[in-house]
Order: sequence, then C-alpha cells, then structure tokens
Amino acid sequence: MKQQLKKMILSAVADELEQVEIALNQNLTPYLELVQKIAGHILFSGGKRLRPLLMILCARMCGYKSESLIHYSTMFEYLHVATLLHDDVIDQADMRRGKKAAHHVFGAAETVLTGDYLLAKSLAIAGETGKMAIIQLAAKITEEMAQGELLQMVHQRNPNLTEQDYLKIVQSKTAVLMQASCESGAILADASPDILKSVSIYGKNVGTAFQIADDILDYTAETKILGKQIGADLREGKLTLPVIYTLQKANTTEQSFIEKMIQNEHFSHTDFEKLLEIMATYNSIGFCMSQAEAYVDKARNALKTIPETSEHQLLYHIADFVVARDY
Amino acid sequence: MKQQLKKMILSAVADELEQVEIALNQNLTPYLELVQKIAGHILFSGGKRLRPLLMILCARMCGYKSESLIHYSTMFEYLHVATLLHDDVIDQADMRRGKKAAHHVFGAAETVLTGDYLLAKSLAIAGETGKMAIIQLAAKITEEMAQGELLQMVHQRNPNLTEQDYLKIVQSKTAVLMQASCESGAILADASPDILKSVSIYGKNVGTAFQIADDILDYTAETKILGKQIGADLREGKLTLPVIYTLQKANTTEQSFIEKMIQNEHFSHTDFEKLLEIMATYNSIGFCMSQAEAYVDKARNALKTIPETSEHQLLYHIADFVVARDY
Repeated sequence: MKQQLKKMILSAVADELEQVEIALNQNLTPYLELVQKIAGHILFSGGKRLRPLLMILCARMCGYKSESLIHYSTMFEYLHVATLLHDDVIDQADMRRGKKAAHHVFGAAETVLTGDYLLAKSLAIAGETGKMAIIQLAAKITEEMAQGELLQMVHQRNPNLTEQDYLKIVQSKTAVLMQASCESGAILADASPDILKSVSIYGKNVGTAFQIADDILDYTAETKILGKQIGADLREGKLTLPVIYTLQKANTTEQSFIEKMIQNEHFSHTDFEKLLEIMATYNSIGFCMSQAEAYVDKARNALKTIPETSEHQLLYHIADFVVARDY
Repeated sequence: MKQQLKKMILSAVADELEQVEIALNQNLTPYLELVQKIAGHILFSGGKRLRPLLMILCARMCGYKSESLIHYSTMFEYLHVATLLHDDVIDQADMRRGKKAAHHVFGAAETVLTGDYLLAKSLAIAGETGKMAIIQLAAKITEEMAQGELLQMVHQRNPNLTEQDYLKIVQSKTAVLMQASCESGAILADASPDILKSVSIYGKNVGTAFQIADDILDYTAETKILGKQIGADLREGKLTLPVIYTLQKANTTEQSFIEKMIQNEHFSHTDFEKLLEIMATYNSIGFCMSQAEAYVDKARNALKTIPETSEHQLLYHIADFVVARDY
C-alpha cells in the first residue's frame, strides 16, 4: 500500500523531479568549490524534494504556466537544506540521510557558512520571481524557523513540554516552510484570496502531519531506512508527540523512568526497549498516527474548495504519503 | 585631529544616529525573548552604525526624501550584526566590542540561530523597500559574505597568502556590505546609472579602506579602546596586510620567525613584541596606512562627479574617518 502510493506519486512527477534535480545543480553557483562540496553533500543525498514539488503542483493547480516554475521551486529546497545544515551543527547530529552529517566531514564553521550561503541563495531566487509577496514570505518564514529551532532548544530535556508547546515548535520549524511552498505557488499564479487561503491551509496541515510522522519514525523505523539511529531525538533531549503523549498516560513509576531517560543522553538500549514497551501499553504510536491523519484530513478538505485538476489529485496523494512513508 | 573629525561627523549626524538607534530597537520584534536578548547583546554595544549612515547619506545626496529611510537603513546593521554573530562563533572569538562574545554568554547554537533571524530580518526589510534591485543586492552580498568568510578560513595559517588573496577576502567580507549600503541609498532615490556607479565606487573603496584600517588596529591599538586583545587576528591564523607585507620585505631569518608564529596560536607576548619590531623595521604599518589612504582617495574621487550637497561633504569626511579612527 505504502509502496504503491509512493510509486504512483513518483511516476506522476518523475519529469518534474528530474528537472528540479537539474535546476538545483545549475542554480548552485558559488565561486568557492568548498561551498559546492558542502552544499552538494546534503543537497544530493536523496532528499524527497517535497517542498519544490508542493510549490510546482500548487502553482499549476492554480493555472500558472511559465517554465521558470522549476527554477523558482528550488528556493524552498535551498532554504530547507540551509536549515538542515544549521540544525545538524546545533544538534551535533552524527548522521543525516544515511551519511555522516556535513559538520563532521567539513567542520562546523564551514557548515554554518554554507548554510548562510544557501539561505541567501534562496532569498535571491525569491527576488527573481518578482513577486513581493513571495519575498516577504520567504524572509518571514526564515525568521520563524530560526525561532522555532530556538524554541525547541529552550525546551530541551524539559519533561513538562505540553502538546501545545510541541505543536508550536512543529508549526515554526516545519509547517511554515511547506505552507510557504504551497502559498508561493498560488501567488505565482495570481490565485484569488480564497484559493490562496485554501492552499495555505493545505500546506500548513500537510507540514504538521509530515513532522508528526517524522517524529513517529524516530521510534519505529529501521536505522537503515531512516538514515540515522532511532531514538536520536530523545537522546538529543527533543521531546516529541510519542513521548509527550506517553508521559500523559503513564503511571507514576513509568513517568519517573521516562523522565530519567529524558535527562540522560546515554540511556541504554534496554531502557529504550522498555520505553517502547510502555508506549505500546498506551498505544502511543497509534494515537500519534491518528493525530497525523487528522491533519491530513484537514489538508485534503482544504483542497475541496478548489476546482479539480490532475495536480489536485496528486496533492491529495501527497497528503496521504507524508504519513504513510517509512523514511 | 582624529578626535575633531569624529566629533564633527558625530554632531552632524546626531539626529540620524538617534533615529537609527530607535528604529533598530523597534524593528527587532522576535516572539522569543531569547532572540531579543542575544541580538541586543551585540546590537546595542556601541556599534558605529556606519552602514545605516552610508545608506542614509547616499540616499539623501541623491535626492531621496521619504521618512522611511531610517527604517530601511536598519537592514544593513542587522545584516552586519548577523555576520558578526556567525563570525564570532566560527572564529571562537572571546570578545567583541569590549564584551564577552555572544556565544560565550548564550551558547554557540543560540548565537547561530539569532544570526539567522537577523539575516532574515534584514532581507525582510529589503523587501519592504519595494525595490527589486535592493532585494537582489541584499541576497547577493549575503552569498558573497558567507563565501568571503569561508575563503578566509580556507587560508587560515597560510603563510603564502598574497596581497591579492587578501584583497579578495576584504572585498567579499567587508567592502561589499558598505558598497551595497551606499548603492541601496542611490537605488531608493532612483539615481541615474552614472551616479549609482559613482556611489558604488565610493562604497567599495571606503569599505576596503575601512577593513585595512581595522586590520592595522589589530597591531597598533590599545586593548581597552579596541574592545578586544591586540594580535587576536594572528592568533586566529588570519593573515592581514601588515603581516603579508612584512613577510614580503623580511629577511629569511625574520620570515621563518614569523611563519612559526603563524602556526602557533599560543605565541608569547615577547614574540609579538619582536614581530612589532620587525614591522617597524620595514615601516609595514606606514605602508598599510598609505594603501588605506589610497582607497580613501579613490572613494573621494568617485564623489567628485556628483553635485555637492551637505551629505556629500559628510561622505567625504567619513571616508577620512574610516582610516583615522582608533577603534
């Protein structure tokens, strides 16, 4: 089922994905070879190109025809990768997409600066669209994402993090970028305010569902498929929905066990197994999946107000895919 | 003489400086208090506000009258401070403007993210100008500055760094920002291509002179006035004009002494004194000052093609000031 959905989406957008890949390569024109190397290390390591795809499909769904679309859509992949580079330095992450994180290969300083370069590149492409609303949006979400990441840091190893705090972080860190990718597509097409609003709701909810699914994978995926060790979030002191929900449901003994794990980045494999058992008791993963699916429903509902096109159908399936994926 | 020049400039632009200070405070509206704190730590620690001033004076010289000018001019101070925050993390600098560097007070990750926030803020304000050329310029120089800093890193502790390499770094790291501040002022005023070109040459050369003067101060200033230890550049492995020139002139024994210092971040105070003596033998500081002054001349000459106004006079004096300052 998952595999079928993935295959279907990938075959429908194969041309676009290929063009995005070429554009990502061509637009990356630093004068320093080192920047090319560091940016390439993560840019061409199997990203899903979800953000460019969202922009492309939303733009076409709203009637945008220009061939510059592929070029413009790279801005959101550059911005995404810029934040990944900075986040990996900040989290001192070991791996990303099955490879050593860039800062371990090239150094933290070099990685931060390449992130800055990509961030600027993204805003330069926003400028090329000639649409002031897209430029403002790109700048605004960059401010928002930096603060979202900081908010997450402020709450590191805080066992009292609420579901509401968590959603605020998800919103700032992840959802705004997908929302902006979708909105920018609609803005390019000069969509009506009503359609822009629907596209925006779609993007925000797909983004939220995506991050919840991502956070679930940190407790369920196989390391090989995930491209990093499972349980990495908890080791880094990042509390996500599976743990927040489990803490709410757990009895006092379980709570104190989990709270100790939250404070200890070197918890044992046995402890992690035990945590997974407690999660199973309360069906925490099931709860989180149902939450993610509720956001998918909201996303799909938002599309209902927009006349049906082939892109429309694909956006429907992408909403399903973000929670059905295993990587 | 120096003090008089400084006093004269400061009294002529006292109103503008006060308004810039207020705008810098008002425009800084993160939702996280921590961002406000970290940004404020460096933003309000006695910066010269040279970049906003250049934009304001160039805009007015070219006939721009809108009151939004002060607001717009903050974009270059935010961008400047964003790069300072990232540079301090990258250089692992101890002090900045007489205070502990932000990353020592707030942490490296927090400082990187606040830099990202300010970078985005700067580009958001560029967007508010409604001038596509300013937006493109801001994005382009941000790419350039990130690469300039990387280029400097690549050449860290490289005793074969040439004067040309050095000037390329100065250009990318520092001059482009002052050049863009000046150009943006002219763009706001819809200046003719000829005038824009002159303003651009002025900015580029003032920026180059400024950085050479800055690099001289690292060998001549008093720590208390400089706000950081002298010799810090060399300890960090940054070769600047005074050392590059001295290496060119020095005999083999002196060269090998200096090259050893370049490789050793823990060189002694006695070694540093000896280096200053070698520099004195070849009048290295005198040579660097004459280079800086040549850039000042180029900057002043560029202004000659522009009709004289009161701002014109001030820009003349600012060009002198950047090499005459002692901090």
